[in-house]
Amino acid sequence: MTLHLNDLRVRDLGECRYDSPLSELLSTKQTSPHYVAEGDRVLLEDTVSMLAGHSLPSVQAPSFEAAGPRRKIYFDPAEVTAGVVTCGGLCPGLNNVIRGLVKALAVHYGVKQILGFRNGLRGLTAEHRDDTIELTVEGVRDIHHAGGTVLGSSRGGQNADEMVDSLVLRGVTMLFVVGGDGGMRAATYLSEAIRARGLDIAVIGVPKTIDNDLPFTDQSFGFQSAFARATEFISAVSVEAAASPNGVGIVKLMGRHSGFIASYAALAASAADIVLIPEIPFALGGEGGLLAHVEQHVRTKGHVVIVLAEGAGQDLLADHGLPQHNGNGTDASGNIKLGNIGELLKERISAHLTMVGLAPTMRYIDPSYAVRSIAANAYDSVYCLRLAHAAVHAAMAGRTEAAVARWRRRIVHVPLPLMTSHRNQVDPDGDMWMSVLETTCQPAEFGPVRKRDKVPADFC
Amino acid sequence: MTLHLNDLRVRDLGECRYDSPLSELLSTKQTSPHYVAEGDRVLLEDTVSMLAGHSLPSVQAPSFEAAGPRRKIYFDPAEVTAGVVTCGGLCPGLNNVIRGLVKALAVHYGVKQILGFRNGLRGLTAEHRDDTIELTVEGVRDIHHAGGTVLGSSRGGQNADEMVDSLVLRGVTMLFVVGGDGGMRAATYLSEAIRARGLDIAVIGVPKTIDNDLPFTDQSFGFQSAFARATEFISAVSVEAAASPNGVGIVKLMGRHSGFIASYAALAASAADIVLIPEIPFALGGEGGLLAHVEQHVRTKGHVVIVLAEGAGQDLLADHGLPQHNGNGTDASGNIKLGNIGELLKERISAHLTMVGLAPTMRYIDPSYAVRSIAANAYDSVYCLRLAHAAVHAAMAGRTEAAVARWRRRIVHVPLPLMTSHRNQVDPDGDMWMSVLETTCQPAEFGPVRKRDKVPADFC
Amino acid sequence: MTLHLNDLRVRDLGECRYDSPLSELLSTKQTSPHYVAEGDRVLLEDTVSMLAGHSLPSVQAPSFEAAGPRRKIYFDPAEVTAGVVTCGGLCPGLNNVIRGLVKALAVHYGVKQILGFRNGLRGLTAEHRDDTIELTVEGVRDIHHAGGTVLGSSRGGQNADEMVDSLVLRGVTMLFVVGGDGGMRAATYLSEAIRARGLDIAVIGVPKTIDNDLPFTDQSFGFQSAFARATEFISAVSVEAAASPNGVGIVKLMGRHSGFIASYAALAASAADIVLIPEIPFALGGEGGLLAHVEQHVRTKGHVVIVLAEGAGQDLLADHGLPQHNGNGTDASGNIKLGNIGELLKERISAHLTMVGLAPTMRYIDPSYAVRSIAANAYDSVYCLRLAHAAVHAAMAGRTEAAVARWRRRIVHVPLPLMTSHRNQVDPDGDMWMSVLETTCQPAEFGPVRKRDKVPADFC
Amino acid sequence: MTLHLNDLRVRDLGECRYDSPLSELLSTKQTSPHYVAEGDRVLLEDTVSMLAGHSLPSVQAPSFEAAGPRRKIYFDPAEVTAGVVTCGGLCPGLNNVIRGLVKALAVHYGVKQILGFRNGLRGLTAEHRDDTIELTVEGVRDIHHAGGTVLGSSRGGQNADEMVDSLVLRGVTMLFVVGGDGGMRAATYLSEAIRARGLDIAVIGVPKTIDNDLPFTDQSFGFQSAFARATEFISAVSVEAAASPNGVGIVKLMGRHSGFIASYAALAASAADIVLIPEIPFALGGEGGLLAHVEQHVRTKGHVVIVLAEGAGQDLLADHGLPQHNGNGTDASGNIKLGNIGELLKERISAHLTMVGLAPTMRYIDPSYAVRSIAANAYDSVYCLRLAHAAVHAAMAGRTEAAVARWRRRIVHVPLPLMTSHRNQVDPDGDMWMSVLETTCQPAEFGPVRKRDKVPADFC
Repeated sequence: MTLHLNDLRVRDLGECRYDSPLSELLSTKQTSPHYVAEGDRVLLEDTVSMLAGHSLPSVQAPSFEAAGPRRKIYFDPAEVTAGVVTCGGLCPGLNNVIRGLVKALAVHYGVKQILGFRNGLRGLTAEHRDDTIELTVEGVRDIHHAGGTVLGSSRGGQNADEMVDSLVLRGVTMLFVVGGDGGMRAATYLSEAIRARGLDIAVIGVPKTIDNDLPFTDQSFGFQSAFARATEFISAVSVEAAASPNGVGIVKLMGRHSGFIASYAALAASAADIVLIPEIPFALGGEGGLLAHVEQHVRTKGHVVIVLAEGAGQDLLADHGLPQHNGNGTDASGNIKLGNIGELLKERISAHLTMVGLAPTMRYIDPSYAVRSIAANAYDSVYCLRLAHAAVHAAMAGRTEAAVARWRRRIVHVPLPLMTSHRNQVDPDGDMWMSVLETTCQPAEFGPVRKRDKVPADFC
Repeated sequence: MTLHLNDLRVRDLGECRYDSPLSELLSTKQTSPHYVAEGDRVLLEDTVSMLAGHSLPSVQAPSFEAAGPRRKIYFDPAEVTAGVVTCGGLCPGLNNVIRGLVKALAVHYGVKQILGFRNGLRGLTAEHRDDTIELTVEGVRDIHHAGGTVLGSSRGGQNADEMVDSLVLRGVTMLFVVGGDGGMRAATYLSEAIRARGLDIAVIGVPKTIDNDLPFTDQSFGFQSAFARATEFISAVSVEAAASPNGVGIVKLMGRHSGFIASYAALAASAADIVLIPEIPFALGGEGGLLAHVEQHVRTKGHVVIVLAEGAGQDLLADHGLPQHNGNGTDASGNIKLGNIGELLKERISAHLTMVGLAPTMRYIDPSYAVRSIAANAYDSVYCLRLAHAAVHAAMAGRTEAAVARWRRRIVHVPLPLMTSHRNQVDPDGDMWMSVLETTCQPAEFGPVRKRDKVPADFC
Repeated sequence: MTLHLNDLRVRDLGECRYDSPLSELLSTKQTSPHYVAEGDRVLLEDTVSMLAGHSLPSVQAPSFEAAGPRRKIYFDPAEVTAGVVTCGGLCPGLNNVIRGLVKALAVHYGVKQILGFRNGLRGLTAEHRDDTIELTVEGVRDIHHAGGTVLGSSRGGQNADEMVDSLVLRGVTMLFVVGGDGGMRAATYLSEAIRARGLDIAVIGVPKTIDNDLPFTDQSFGFQSAFARATEFISAVSVEAAASPNGVGIVKLMGRHSGFIASYAALAASAADIVLIPEIPFALGGEGGLLAHVEQHVRTKGHVVIVLAEGAGQDLLADHGLPQHNGNGTDASGNIKLGNIGELLKERISAHLTMVGLAPTMRYIDPSYAVRSIAANAYDSVYCLRLAHAAVHAAMAGRTEAAVARWRRRIVHVPLPLMTSHRNQVDPDGDMWMSVLETTCQPAEFGPVRKRDKVPADFC
Repeated sequence: MTLHLNDLRVRDLGECRYDSPLSELLSTKQTSPHYVAEGDRVLLEDTVSMLAGHSLPSVQAPSFEAAGPRRKIYFDPAEVTAGVVTCGGLCPGLNNVIRGLVKALAVHYGVKQILGFRNGLRGLTAEHRDDTIELTVEGVRDIHHAGGTVLGSSRGGQNADEMVDSLVLRGVTMLFVVGGDGGMRAATYLSEAIRARGLDIAVIGVPKTIDNDLPFTDQSFGFQSAFARATEFISAVSVEAAASPNGVGIVKLMGRHSGFIASYAALAASAADIVLIPEIPFALGGEGGLLAHVEQHVRTKGHVVIVLAEGAGQDLLADHGLPQHNGNGTDASGNIKLGNIGELLKERISAHLTMVGLAPTMRYIDPSYAVRSIAANAYDSVYCLRLAHAAVHAAMAGRTEAAVARWRRRIVHVPLPLMTSHRNQVDPDGDMWMSVLETTCQPAEFGPVRKRDKVPADFC
């Protein structure tokens, strides 16, 4: 899709009439490579050839509103009741975001009441709307040292009107939704219901995706922590495979539609021989197929290490009469349930190697929970803090139906619906996948594969 | 300074006449958000208001050449002898860069001979030019698990002509210089001497700075590993200070001219009460001065934690009759020797608190070597690998007098002299320092300070 | 069983006639709390009431020969060819032991030839006996930084005579067998075959068991590294369970017959509500059964965390018509194959909680390979080094059919057959299990259970 | 000194008349290798030759009372007010001990009131006796994840009567003193004052020493965490030294009188060339002196790594006219202040190498606070928990003037005065130091040294 300037405009609730408590700090600031001033915009595209197509002068170029504190704000801090909710699967950094929101609201703006809704959007249903936690600076002081989320989480959207009722009943004037595509979609519906009722409630999304598959986020918070942890499991199967006769090590990593964790972890570990991701179809049998490649590795090197994103090769499951995503229905968040490609590979590789006289020692790990439940590393800690600050500034300035995200290292405001308009995926033509091929020395394709649809780039 | 398009053009050695062994992989690629095609350029600036001042159409806008493999290359790989040298202080990732260079040269391009010069540029002097290591894929296989550099390092430039002689004598056709501002300057002089002699030798710099003070690099490789490690020492003094009556914890971190490590580590640790960096002068005594602030912290909270960049408050040393950078001369790399601000603070804080009846327990750590000598973390491992690949592609395509660097997440070619044209520093008006102030709740200034010169932004 | 002094005597090959190269270092040493002199013995029992039953004077009390260097040695180092083999499953520290053996042999005694047999005892078969690695000081320099074993490993004993032939053909005069109960049994058979042929070959075992289930070893090498790593997975499911509505976290840890890893990891993590080990039978249903206890936890606390040793509750599998160890045959090492108690628990707990209206979120991890493949921690590194030194001293002094082991912090010589005479298990009456009960607050028994056989203590 | 059975008897307050809430769990227990029953005793010595000298039968042999829960207890839990205080320098595990004490008191025995005195024994002075924290199960839930001590600490004893007054005024019936030799001495004086007044207050010591220099403790809690952390700094200077021309790396580690941390860390890191500890004097100059050895290393290997305990070579300071411990007075805990041997070595080595034409690159680290402030590792976590349980059982059973300690893996009761009767030191004749010599290949002595006094063994 082609994005126009209008697509990137963010909604706001109205004129900002209150002086920000931070305004003094802002008085002398000017646009620089490290600061995007109020009113300035950040280009969507930075490549000259792509820009050339747009009707310049550049002020018409597609561009984002910069995030950050404003001199004037929309809400009177003394009147604000803020709400926070975390949705979907765990991801390193959730507690850091919660802590950052609370500290920015309470310390910088002097907001008195901050409610944490428990267990995801479930906490906004009529049944559970009183299951809230009072969030205070003291209460969140040390939570960033732990993984998970002190608010709890759950999958699944909920009835929008019921959720709006909860906000109204609890007096919430700004809601922060930390969540994945399920959460961002729900936040969008919720925003629309709020708008339909003409309510003065800001909804700001903080995009969370351990798979790094949401657009406009450089790399999502928690992603670096997660792939760093994942490398340990690649090392583990690598050690196991190398110490066993005809050792075959397989790690199944997260990545339903996007192979970022698998790719980055494989690059970082430098121990994988083969990386399989959803974006690149592969054939099992036949000349040039995966099995032949695996066999050759075991025959020559004595062992092989495979890193596998959970969403890879889903089309093969159907070929083998196994359930795959098309037939499996969806989970509570609306995510398609995937078939287990890891089990298929384990079985097929074992059968193949045994057949050719290389009876293997299989070492298979699926570390999922052990990866996503860790605390944020130093980098993600800083990132989460800054995203949280930006989210608070956005809400205080009356922005709504918007997510805070980072685009080429700038924190910007992105209209909520855009966050779920498409997926961020590994570009088979991009630099990063090229580095994976260079590092593993695997072929660009395993066997004759179905023609793949052009992988959608970040946007096009 | 204002940069024009011409300032950003990179030199090359001539026409590329050889087919790249990687050309097949490149055949179908097109410019996308994840891939910058050959011939495309990446904008220096992405903020609309800044661009507006340039004479658009945008094809004239200041922009960088994109890094990456080319379909045609300048050197015949079979004829190439590559040289690698690492200069200056240690930094996480040096071994990863060496390993990435060797693997890209040997595996992707089939280069047969790769020499590692020992102990920095000293290894290119007449005296030491035979003290080289043959670098092979097998030899570098596991070196990325260790910190430091297998080539050794040293400070100090050397006679350019002597170094060129070494390259000629050893038959080197491309030299990779991994180094900081000293190394980049030396690489520039060396390039000029090569050009003056009309030699066909490519020189590519891989910028290294643990302080993150080189321009055009987003964040320098090793920086994330370093500041993550540094957070452990902030935690250490924080634990110590909190467990002692009137505890004062001080960590002196690296950062001669730029307070990035101090700032990021403080944000990540979330345990610092005060962050002092070279970019922001501060007064010790007087109302609103540092001592008064420290006293107040100890009085109310029972302890205080200070994170200090080594280059902070150098002007204060002279005030106290202590040697500071102006009087201290320079080290072998031409770096100004700094006075020890940590000792001054320790002494002055101790005296002040004792005087006001709060005799302190001082806990001071200077972990320098323990921070910079660690192995690269997962993120930096990937980053180093990709920088190294880009450096090899640049040299093979005949680029010279250029550095590979990352600008807003794009890897680009930057003319070598630009790498030392100015320093990257923390922008007191930027988002990041704002987050530090928000997190520590320290005042924007300690006491009435000398008027500071406008901190040079990344470029202006 | 009751052990007599004679049971603890170690075989030797004959008189020690060569001066040890270490003899000078030994000249002045005397027995002390830190040093057991040559000729001294270490008591098997240190509890007064247990000793009282023995026919004292204490010189007749059951006691071990102390390990350590001797002034006179049996083998002429110049004539020695040493062999090393690692058997069975991976365990942290294997490379440290290999490295320690090589360094002690080569550096301290000047042994010239050290052979590593590949892939466990398979490397001593006729077919594979040439698949050896020459082990050198330079070659093993950095191997302790990696998990696994550079020699490879495999399960399964081999024909004793064939193995002796290999030793003779390769000229081996001392063999070090690093292995578990399978390996110790094989070493015993091999020793007997050597003795039967009247050969002058020393066989020394270095007991390896990640489960800590071999006797006479205080804690086996690698055990501390392993349980430390295992705590991370308890934390992971704990974080997951706490963040989910009706969260149930289960970690299945190693421990076929002995619940040491589960117990220690649970104590260290302090996050488990229930610990299940092979030594303590439990009932699922009924009043006071596990399911009732789980239900109560979820109802009152909102979630529950269970740490499970793989060998726990094997009797329940048969009750549910599932394969258990009695029906499953044995693996190549002669180990009984266990049924999967984790899957049973997952299914039964899920069914039970759903039935009572607490539909759970299940979080199940089986991290096995990720635990056992890590490198040794600092403590185990020292321990392995010292065990390896002791093993070399034993062999050089002509001891054979012996293992080196640590008994109440003394390194001693234990006759090989004793190492497999019984298993070390968690004593339900012991201090450690008491601490588990105190920490988890779980009941001493879940439900009315089958009368358990008295758990064999370390020996009785 | 020779210890007799009477020396090892522990004082108690009187007859145990209350049933323990734990008595049911104890009903069937019998002495075993894993459990020492009530009334049983653990031998001081386990070496046959040493025992032989004692007047056996063994019931007269020097032996300890076993720790653990008793069926009958002295205090009525409902009436107990417990006090906890942590003294001296930080050590990994302090918070684990506090948490273990609180949980055992509150959960197992149902004690209602537990007071934490702040900042060491200072918290028991008249001035500060109200500066206490109420310790609750909820409050200590997560404290073990942090280093340091939530109670704060300080050095220095206090007036015994004043402290007893505090206990009486606050109604404390049992006091747990977690501390080093300073703390144990103070606890002894305090106990004597309590006894002199005929008060019914139990005093139980939990010995804490990061240097591992207290007797009867196998290895002190926190020691393993500390030396593991220390290895990282040896690796750091090793990496630095190896990467620099004529690199000299020096790490100064804790160890005022005992070189355990230096020795174990050096063994674990396997990167040290020279280890210097207080127990082994050394000469700097002259043939065979340290400087000559250092020079030879740099000349042949290119660099050298030295691990230095802070108490090593104190006699050399006086030789060089520098302050050493004899002249330096004592700190608030009565510890002799040491001169800085690290600075002396740095200066002398630098001068020597420069003189012989090998101008060195010096890399010196003193990581002290960064080592001792970390959280306990998994092993120490378990150890601290079990020590804390034992301490509570001891106090509830009316034991007093006693420490809980571990002797050859048994937890026992030791009379408080014995804990400070002598120091645990590295035995130059022991196995461990032998392993250090074998690993570093350093000579048994550097140069002609002053005749050293026989190092006192653990006791003699």
